[in-house]
Amino acid sequence: MNAPAAINALPDLRSDFPGMVTRDGAPWHYLDTGATAQKPRAVIDAMARALGPDYATVHRGVYSRSAEMTSAYEAARRTIATFLGGNEEEIVFTRGATEAINLVANSWGKANLAPGDRILLSQLEHHSNIVPWQMIAEATGAQIDVCPLTDDHCIDLDAAEAMLTDRHKLVALCHVSNVLGSVLDAPRAARLAHKVGAKILLDGCQSAPHMAVDMAVLDCDFYVFSAHKLYGPTGIGALWARSEILDAMQPWEGGGAMIDRVTFEKTTYAPAPQRFEAGTPAITEAIAFAAAADYVSAVGIDRVHASEAELVARLRRELGAMNDVTLFGPANSAGIVSFAIDDIHPHDLGTILDEGNVAIRAGHHCAQPLMDYLEVPATARASFGLYSTHDDIDALLEGIARTRRIFGKGTGS
Amino acid sequence: MNAPAAINALPDLRSDFPGMVTRDGAPWHYLDTGATAQKPRAVIDAMARALGPDYATVHRGVYSRSAEMTSAYEAARRTIATFLGGNEEEIVFTRGATEAINLVANSWGKANLAPGDRILLSQLEHHSNIVPWQMIAEATGAQIDVCPLTDDHCIDLDAAEAMLTDRHKLVALCHVSNVLGSVLDAPRAARLAHKVGAKILLDGCQSAPHMAVDMAVLDCDFYVFSAHKLYGPTGIGALWARSEILDAMQPWEGGGAMIDRVTFEKTTYAPAPQRFEAGTPAITEAIAFAAAADYVSAVGIDRVHASEAELVARLRRELGAMNDVTLFGPANSAGIVSFAIDDIHPHDLGTILDEGNVAIRAGHHCAQPLMDYLEVPATARASFGLYSTHDDIDALLEGIARTRRIFGKGTGS
Repeated sequence: MNAPAAINALPDLRSDFPGMVTRDGAPWHYLDTGATAQKPRAVIDAMARALGPDYATVHRGVYSRSAEMTSAYEAARRTIATFLGGNEEEIVFTRGATEAINLVANSWGKANLAPGDRILLSQLEHHSNIVPWQMIAEATGAQIDVCPLTDDHCIDLDAAEAMLTDRHKLVALCHVSNVLGSVLDAPRAARLAHKVGAKILLDGCQSAPHMAVDMAVLDCDFYVFSAHKLYGPTGIGALWARSEILDAMQPWEGGGAMIDRVTFEKTTYAPAPQRFEAGTPAITEAIAFAAAADYVSAVGIDRVHASEAELVARLRRELGAMNDVTLFGPANSAGIVSFAIDDIHPHDLGTILDEGNVAIRAGHHCAQPLMDYLEVPATARASFGLYSTHDDIDALLEGIARTRRIFGKGTGS
Repeated sequence: MNAPAAINALPDLRSDFPGMVTRDGAPWHYLDTGATAQKPRAVIDAMARALGPDYATVHRGVYSRSAEMTSAYEAARRTIATFLGGNEEEIVFTRGATEAINLVANSWGKANLAPGDRILLSQLEHHSNIVPWQMIAEATGAQIDVCPLTDDHCIDLDAAEAMLTDRHKLVALCHVSNVLGSVLDAPRAARLAHKVGAKILLDGCQSAPHMAVDMAVLDCDFYVFSAHKLYGPTGIGALWARSEILDAMQPWEGGGAMIDRVTFEKTTYAPAPQRFEAGTPAITEAIAFAAAADYVSAVGIDRVHASEAELVARLRRELGAMNDVTLFGPANSAGIVSFAIDDIHPHDLGTILDEGNVAIRAGHHCAQPLMDYLEVPATARASFGLYSTHDDIDALLEGIARTRRIFGKGTGS
């Protein structure tokens, strides 16, 4: 079947991405953007400049290049804040989304959770939004509740509403599921949390790259995401937190740059967000992170969303027409399609697809409780990015057909 | 005064470093390597390749490029281990040295410190080796002792020997002072610590770039350092820890990649070092970090040490001949010279030097307790790297002479 004419097609952006070709120079059908995104040349060049002719430390040097680097680093913070509709005092640069959640758990959580308090998570959370809460629950005596899913695998907010009590101090939910693409009704989740006096944290790793996010609209208290999933570098991510909450939080890591005054008798700390950035920061990563946000903004996140929605709709339609395929997640998934083919293990599918230069993810996707819930050991997952095209789906479908032949299966139709 | 012929001169490596020129293409006399080192092209290129044609996630993908990236990431761990004379199971990649110390404090410290236990630090520690211990002391009820300095500003191990008791569980010391260049007699410090049953952590941020380090010789239990001070990227560092200690440590941050099996009832963790690397790691930074270690190894760390020792000796001799200059630290400093000129604030000196394309650090160097001890608000610090030459010292001395003229001071001789 040929690809339909794309109504919302983006210009072909593949040539901006040095990673989108194989060693032989053939197109690489990269359908694992949910794990990590490829980087546009603008990001790689920003990194190379920052590590090369522009390089200096920040916040310390008395010489001009260090002052310029400090300006660039703080401008990066503003760029990320603007990307989220927040302000720069609300952005903490972290090692990634995982560290950002651990920071909230250890700083806000340790100060605000007590025995008998409750934390509401959901069945579809990534391990990074489960394990830090399990660790802090064990340390504080708080307890974890798990919100179930609807029939189409979205977080069931009706159930959440029934579960929430005034003992709940925190609701921590995935904005977009990394396995299923399910989009949370975040404003409603925030209303439910706030109604019982709880704070709400959104794991935005899969929402920031796939849809417009605005902190004022989402009405959350904490939002975390990773640069590397937004076409930026590894080694950096960000925590956005509402100013009055961040200002009241105690530091988690100690070291240089986060202090006001150190003596062996008493140490006082810098204001937020510096208080949370101990040590020499990921200077060049912050600058390249901002270059990534600028790139996405220039392409237009609404156009990215529309393009990916069209790709999701087609892939779900084509896979849904095969009688041995199980589709997971909702129809309006944000850029992600998880599926299983009867009698073909997702790993085998992934390996055979690789021979045709198609890269998908196969596994538990760091969401084992969701796999238990779906009663599968693993799924195959195709995830899209702003460089994805119908050609990638063609190649995936051809690869599935080839896998069927190798396994001696029919066409599935 | 002309520079003496350099006996131990390295080949001129400046051309390997795109950062070593000013915007106008003039030589930049960068004497702030103690804050952060410039990067050789080999590191910048390794980063660009990893972010570009080689890019993929690690430890997860079923496709070949992800398998190749995983190999490269784990090869980087081996390279760093070999650089330290350790083995790969003993290397945890962290956000930097600061995070590595916080990891030890929060994992090992929380499990092994109790009320009445004592931690021995020294008067010359960087804030990153003070504040995490203050935070963990407050959390556990342990107490901090501060080892004084000798007359030439080295950590006084005779005093340490007299101070240590069987209540001391940890000794955490700077291997090389970032302000003074003082080199610790690490094997003796380790013997003293081990004699009372304490563990010893070395802050190696300023030793790894300046001298050969071998974990077997140092006989320490923990060693931390940052990539960016070793000519590598920002956003990554490493903790080396003795296997049997690391294996017994509980994880600090929770998330993906550090788990064995997650359920809401019970989560089990991966073995070390993966247990300590939650979330998508700093993949491209690890690869560029290894490229930096390879670069330093190819130049030869002993030759670097000899070259820097010669530069230190000359600068101390020239500054020491000026009657209004105070020199801090010992004569055999590792690559670092801290000084003050009567009636010229180090910041003013730094600013005027900058006009002549000379970059030094002026300030408290994240070591306020040492400043209190030296009874100065700040020092001027020139720190050398493997690209430093006598030309840099010439430019510094010319800049000092110019500053004197601006301040209406004599020649100092």
